Amino acid sequence: MFNPKHPPQNLDEIRALLADLPSADSEAQAAVLQREPTLTKPAGSLGRLEDFSLWLAGWQGTSRPNMSRPRVTVFAGSHGVVAQGVSAFPATVNQQMVENFINGGAAINQICKSVDAELRVMEVALEIPTNDFSQEPAMDDEGCAEAMAFGMSAIEKGLDLFVPGEMGIGNTSSAAAIAHALYGGEAADWTGRGTGIDDETLIRKTRVVGDAIILHKNQMHDGLDVLRCVGGREIAAMAGAIIAARFARVPVLLDGYVSCAAAAVLAAIRPDALDHCLVGHVSAEPGHSRLIEKLGKKALIDFGMRLGEGSGAALAIPLLRAAAECHNNMATFDKAGVDGKD
Amino acid sequence: MFNPKHPPQNLDEIRALLADLPSADSEAQAAVLQREPTLTKPAGSLGRLEDFSLWLAGWQGTSRPNMSRPRVTVFAGSHGVVAQGVSAFPATVNQQMVENFINGGAAINQICKSVDAELRVMEVALEIPTNDFSQEPAMDDEGCAEAMAFGMSAIEKGLDLFVPGEMGIGNTSSAAAIAHALYGGEAADWTGRGTGIDDETLIRKTRVVGDAIILHKNQMHDGLDVLRCVGGREIAAMAGAIIAARFARVPVLLDGYVSCAAAAVLAAIRPDALDHCLVGHVSAEPGHSRLIEKLGKKALIDFGMRLGEGSGAALAIPLLRAAAECHNNMATFDKAGVDGKD
Repeated sequence: MFNPKHPPQNLDEIRALLADLPSADSEAQAAVLQREPTLTKPAGSLGRLEDFSLWLAGWQGTSRPNMSRPRVTVFAGSHGVVAQGVSAFPATVNQQMVENFINGGAAINQICKSVDAELRVMEVALEIPTNDFSQEPAMDDEGCAEAMAFGMSAIEKGLDLFVPGEMGIGNTSSAAAIAHALYGGEAADWTGRGTGIDDETLIRKTRVVGDAIILHKNQMHDGLDVLRCVGGREIAAMAGAIIAARFARVPVLLDGYVSCAAAAVLAAIRPDALDHCLVGHVSAEPGHSRLIEKLGKKALIDFGMRLGEGSGAALAIPLLRAAAECHNNMATFDKAGVDGKD
Repeated sequence: MFNPKHPPQNLDEIRALLADLPSADSEAQAAVLQREPTLTKPAGSLGRLEDFSLWLAGWQGTSRPNMSRPRVTVFAGSHGVVAQGVSAFPATVNQQMVENFINGGAAINQICKSVDAELRVMEVALEIPTNDFSQEPAMDDEGCAEAMAFGMSAIEKGLDLFVPGEMGIGNTSSAAAIAHALYGGEAADWTGRGTGIDDETLIRKTRVVGDAIILHKNQMHDGLDVLRCVGGREIAAMAGAIIAARFARVPVLLDGYVSCAAAAVLAAIRPDALDHCLVGHVSAEPGHSRLIEKLGKKALIDFGMRLGEGSGAALAIPLLRAAAECHNNMATFDKAGVDGKD
């Protein structure tokens, strides 16, 4: 069982945690399924909102799902692979954007304020780039585990939802490499324009992604190996947070391509590892919709965003909140004196 | 020019209003387009959120779009056509649901509370059903104009958004008949299960819709004729509110099939009549996605809801609010000291 006071020291300890994931609360779900048809609306007429309240109840472990304390954490990490010229923006932007988050100036600040969600920023050794994964593994075993354990510390019991967001120039290259390693296909299937690279850079980025998978092939035996070889620290931190959320009964709303790549390394080890996760938004990065399909999920919204920061998922929080409030607070047919079907 | 103190007395006066619709504020839109690329994010990375803030600015007439005062009005009307057995629920539910709205027990109450929107309920002569449109026109000219004028009174200057919602057992039959009259095809293309009718009732409902269009064919020369012949009072009220919103600089977020059918009668008269409208949610009623396509719109969300009440559109309000807040409050590259593209 996961004990936040004794964080895992290496990837095998994390593999042991993954073997031990708790299930949804079936009693809470049964209570929701019993109440739903008594509410003053035609059966099923709230569509996916009804699925969301059932899902929240199961993973929060309560028959009355709640959305008063959602948290978005933006993990910021620095990537050695930017030396290969895979991004439109310079790596200096990482620290500048962290300051922008702290000063309240970024998109995620406005969205969190607007949707009434808590926002935290966690730098994952931002001043030290990971190794360039086109040359060597991005992290060693203990370094990857340490970043995951750091991510686990983003979760606390009593949160109603967790959104893993990220900032890291170069990290869509990592996401592409992770997806390509896990699901095969061509590197080009998984490599996109990220923050907006030109054609020439896209060709270079695609080659970097494809070559990296060939380079590390022999040492990538499971999802955590993939994470270590071609991931990044903020990606490892997100994966850790997703595991910790499961143990803490905190449902997770995944964000864009990088957030979903972090989740995918867990699903590769255990297909049910993401049952406590939904995807908030499908991004304009072409690999993202393919990745969501591989994860067996369907995003809540599709606005063509491609910013990261947790922005797409944070935007979807009010939709889950409304689902919970409809389920909890609607009158029943009996109580409201409303006639049922003829 | 529209004067709310002198509501239109007949449909020709409404036709005159439609000839006189104001345009979007192009100065406000130019200001938004100038500011957007200065904000600390890759260009275009907020996707549709950027479209929404531009749209809100144009129709609110301000360079800083706002979402602090959205209003949802549920118009309730009673339909003579229910005598034909087209609904799963008895007409007694109309008044009972109005009481449920007033007592705060319906889905729309929870959603409005959750998204911080004002909710009003307006009965449109609920105690008097319209004529059965399978036998005669649902309303006469003055009666239809009166219901539209009543709907106009739901709008006031200073609202940031208006959602026209509805309650009216039998009103998806009206919506289907309106869409069939306006866009042709087969009655079955436009007729769905509404609140959940069985196969036998669906066959009957489809026949009622198809026969009504044949019956009234010779007197349906434009959208308002269609509204009068096969619409209903709450549908007329929604159409009136949509017109009044245009004059009052209040953008409109349309809801489900019935709400969009009300809007469609205006678009049939003037294709740009709905430029100040978006569609909040595409419902599970099959005709709705076809109708949205005919209107040239793309819904914000798709959750398979089919409740009416304004519920799907109300749910989407926080998405527009977040769009406005990102545009208004994000830091610029200059101010935040964030480097631009390499």
